[in-house]
Amino acid sequence: MSTVKLGIIGLGQQGGAYANFIKEGRIRNIEIGAICDIDAAKQERAQSEYPEVPFYQNYIEMLDSGNVDAIVTCVPHYLHPEMGIEALKRDIHALLEKPAGVYTKQVREINEYAATKPALTYAIMFNQRTNPLYQKVKEIIDNGEIGAIRRTNWIITTWWRPQGYYDAGSWRATWDGEGGGVLVNQAPHQIDLLQWMCGMPEKVYTKAQYGYQRNIPVEDDVTTIVDYGNGATGVFVTCTHDVMGTDRLEILGDKGKIVVDDSKKITLKRLHKPEREMSNSMSMQDMMTLFRGKGPEAIYEEEILEFDSVWGGQHLAVLENFAANILDDTPLIAPGSDGINGVELANAMHLSSWLNQEINLPIDEELYVRELEKRRASEK
Amino acid sequence: MSTVKLGIIGLGQQGGAYANFIKEGRIRNIEIGAICDIDAAKQERAQSEYPEVPFYQNYIEMLDSGNVDAIVTCVPHYLHPEMGIEALKRDIHALLEKPAGVYTKQVREINEYAATKPALTYAIMFNQRTNPLYQKVKEIIDNGEIGAIRRTNWIITTWWRPQGYYDAGSWRATWDGEGGGVLVNQAPHQIDLLQWMCGMPEKVYTKAQYGYQRNIPVEDDVTTIVDYGNGATGVFVTCTHDVMGTDRLEILGDKGKIVVDDSKKITLKRLHKPEREMSNSMSMQDMMTLFRGKGPEAIYEEEILEFDSVWGGQHLAVLENFAANILDDTPLIAPGSDGINGVELANAMHLSSWLNQEINLPIDEELYVRELEKRRASEK
Repeated sequence: MSTVKLGIIGLGQQGGAYANFIKEGRIRNIEIGAICDIDAAKQERAQSEYPEVPFYQNYIEMLDSGNVDAIVTCVPHYLHPEMGIEALKRDIHALLEKPAGVYTKQVREINEYAATKPALTYAIMFNQRTNPLYQKVKEIIDNGEIGAIRRTNWIITTWWRPQGYYDAGSWRATWDGEGGGVLVNQAPHQIDLLQWMCGMPEKVYTKAQYGYQRNIPVEDDVTTIVDYGNGATGVFVTCTHDVMGTDRLEILGDKGKIVVDDSKKITLKRLHKPEREMSNSMSMQDMMTLFRGKGPEAIYEEEILEFDSVWGGQHLAVLENFAANILDDTPLIAPGSDGINGVELANAMHLSSWLNQEINLPIDEELYVRELEKRRASEK
Repeated sequence: MSTVKLGIIGLGQQGGAYANFIKEGRIRNIEIGAICDIDAAKQERAQSEYPEVPFYQNYIEMLDSGNVDAIVTCVPHYLHPEMGIEALKRDIHALLEKPAGVYTKQVREINEYAATKPALTYAIMFNQRTNPLYQKVKEIIDNGEIGAIRRTNWIITTWWRPQGYYDAGSWRATWDGEGGGVLVNQAPHQIDLLQWMCGMPEKVYTKAQYGYQRNIPVEDDVTTIVDYGNGATGVFVTCTHDVMGTDRLEILGDKGKIVVDDSKKITLKRLHKPEREMSNSMSMQDMMTLFRGKGPEAIYEEEILEFDSVWGGQHLAVLENFAANILDDTPLIAPGSDGINGVELANAMHLSSWLNQEINLPIDEELYVRELEKRRASEK
């Protein structure tokens, strides 16, 4: 195989964008094998824009057609795992849109099934992992440059959405259609980046507001405290009602600090001596001298790293990496099995907010599903 | 009376600084009436530096001597309320050092007693309320310029203290000596400012770390989620182990946003239209146009206000204001009765962390004292 024939399931905003990228020849080694959408109206659009591409209303028929080597699931989140499993069953590679699913139980199913088919490529669209800025942050942490992490703090409120956005689709921002709000639709990017860079927390406490500033049943405002289990803690704040949104990530370590502003600028401080050593060797008098006399350069060096915004190219990079893994085993940027971490964190945040208590990870999956079902049922 | 004769109780770091300010003539309308310290060694120092000032080892004797019109309590926090009450009983004005006390029950006692003596001046040393920057922030909020508050977020980790600071006094950073760590010693300034500017929360959830990076039994690291009861929430983060400390306050409102950096710079954004109106009148398409096309000036105007650091002069201003209130009823910057709010918040944070649950305000005062006593007893 020299080119991957991709089956695009769902010709909405995301699926349409991928189809266009491929048609325009912007993704190496991928062609459109087939398009699938349950909406008959999409068939006309597909046939006019991609006249040579087979169209299916039923994705199983597409999988069985022999026209696709791989699929991408641009459909509501609940469907990602089962579609992925059906593809893998037929030895078809699967790229899941994020989030991997709505609840961990369904994501665990596909992870377990995928593990039985190691020759197949199973990946997830965590496009922000291709952002050179976050790759750099991960590298700085992994290199031990700032030492062990003591605290993380991410305010990511740049996900503004007007009421009209929510009103445009009846499934949007509902328990039954999406399984949540900002935690399952917008913030999964940062939730994944956080655990990718800083590791999985062991405990989570969340205060979420449901329909606070928007007329929706799901959460539009979330504040979470994470506990990494070794004394390190963190804060994660997100919402969809701040039109002047903030994107500020701070990571404090034993030997330094990283501050990321607007996903564009890293301010990296490296202490000359680990903080613990400073604490153990200094008196109150030394401290006064330090803070009133000399500038900060006495204790740390500061480096500023600026990055261009990379919006748009990220999805291309993940699609290309997916094809490259299929064709020549290039390592995946985001293995499908990683998707469960973000889902687990989002589930823990919901559960904590619903029960108003701190939640240990891994969560009680059955309890989560029961609580979610209550909310889905209440909408009917 | 044209000059207030001040009795300084406790000739430590703070009391010594106030005595010096007065001796140097830097505080209008105050002279040193007497100095008191239980430590006999301080007597020598007092008599050499302030030879004409009477010295007492017992503060009751000082109060009864007729040498003082007013007192300031530069002693361990537990003692502030009872010393204040003893002064007021003798018709002597009282300025409490912060915090007003260790627990609300004792602060409530002095507040209730002071209310029976309205002719007396009862104030508290919240020196940071004199900071023009925070006065400006309060004014912006009170004027309604950013509308109703939706979210507050203060990371105040500039309170670095080395181990040597804690080791310098055996009472320091113990339950029995101070009644806590960063929440009762360093952060009360910001805890007061927060409630002064943004109002009292109705609920608090806190994760605190005890002896995390320092060899102390009390908290050196705190993360709190506050709930203002009307949907608005906030985060408050403080610690004493970040030598590259952050001081960043963000306040989001319906009509604008305030960001304060390093207690020196206000970035004020005022939306042209309230956010709710934008949300209700815009489609997804409008949103895309907004974020990809025009700059931010399309939706808000931004103003930057820079302030000089005012460290040092603040305590003078509170002392002078205290005297002015005694002499001519100039309104107090920080009435003594306000002190309970910060103590209540700090108590709620401790209690939440101890019980690992969200705490409603007002707290259960008896429960707090019982839990505190357990920790005091464990040190003996």
